[in-house]
Amino acid sequence: MNNKISIRTATETDIPSIFSLIKELAEYEKLSDQIVTTEDELNKTLFGENKFVEILLAEYEGKIVGQAIFFKNFSTFLGKPGIYLEDLYVKPEMRGKGIGKALLDKIILLAKERNYGRVEWSVLDWNGPAIDFYKKIGAKPLEDWTIFRLTSDKF
Amino acid sequence: MNNKISIRTATETDIPSIFSLIKELAEYEKLSDQIVTTEDELNKTLFGENKFVEILLAEYEGKIVGQAIFFKNFSTFLGKPGIYLEDLYVKPEMRGKGIGKALLDKIILLAKERNYGRVEWSVLDWNGPAIDFYKKIGAKPLEDWTIFRLTSDKF
Repeated sequence: MNNKISIRTATETDIPSIFSLIKELAEYEKLSDQIVTTEDELNKTLFGENKFVEILLAEYEGKIVGQAIFFKNFSTFLGKPGIYLEDLYVKPEMRGKGIGKALLDKIILLAKERNYGRVEWSVLDWNGPAIDFYKKIGAKPLEDWTIFRLTSDKF
Repeated sequence: MNNKISIRTATETDIPSIFSLIKELAEYEKLSDQIVTTEDELNKTLFGENKFVEILLAEYEGKIVGQAIFFKNFSTFLGKPGIYLEDLYVKPEMRGKGIGKALLDKIILLAKERNYGRVEWSVLDWNGPAIDFYKKIGAKPLEDWTIFRLTSDKF
């Protein structure tokens, strides 16, 4: 790993950076209209009493340039937990330096250390560079599965 | 709801039934070769120290006929937890009685009571009856997303 890159666990004081990177990711994914959270709400879920989400921040020469947000999932067939990677984001101007790979490598290492069964995430079908990157590390697309979502207005 | 149907939370003594229903689901999904867990391992993850998975059992006239297995996920855009429904299964001979609907209704109610942002799950693209059922309750397929999976042999 490039020694200008470092990966560390986020803390509560990182909330403004975390929120800012979430908004940048939404913009990149053309989904900015879906952002309805606030720093306060994020802080409560991410660092409050019932916290269950983990965040790794990537720094390049000491500056925060990317993040990975993830939590535990569970496979009934494996009978074990896994990691679900909700967001992986590196600032556009910092791509191609191995920062995304460093974040993903750290998550894979955590999954290995914890004896988890797998790591999963979702990618937008038009995001070719991401798809190529994921295939290169040996991940497989689940071509025959579709995610269904019920939004809270239907509850 | 049909008053022959009841939904209850699973306990440790239900492990043999839970495992049996997991194996039936794998058979229905033509994925039996992917089952590598055991009752002991399931018991440890589902009811051990770090438990994070919830299970609802559906009974029909007092007999276990289906289950829903789920855990918390997290949306960075909503800033809130949601429910990820890993398995929803009703024994083939018991379908068409509203048992799957009763399980799903209960999960949606839990999501509502907990002020969660959404409920999500995945479905095999060939499973037309399930897809029709999910659309009828207002769920939307995320057509432009693909799940990627890295299995532990690649860790």
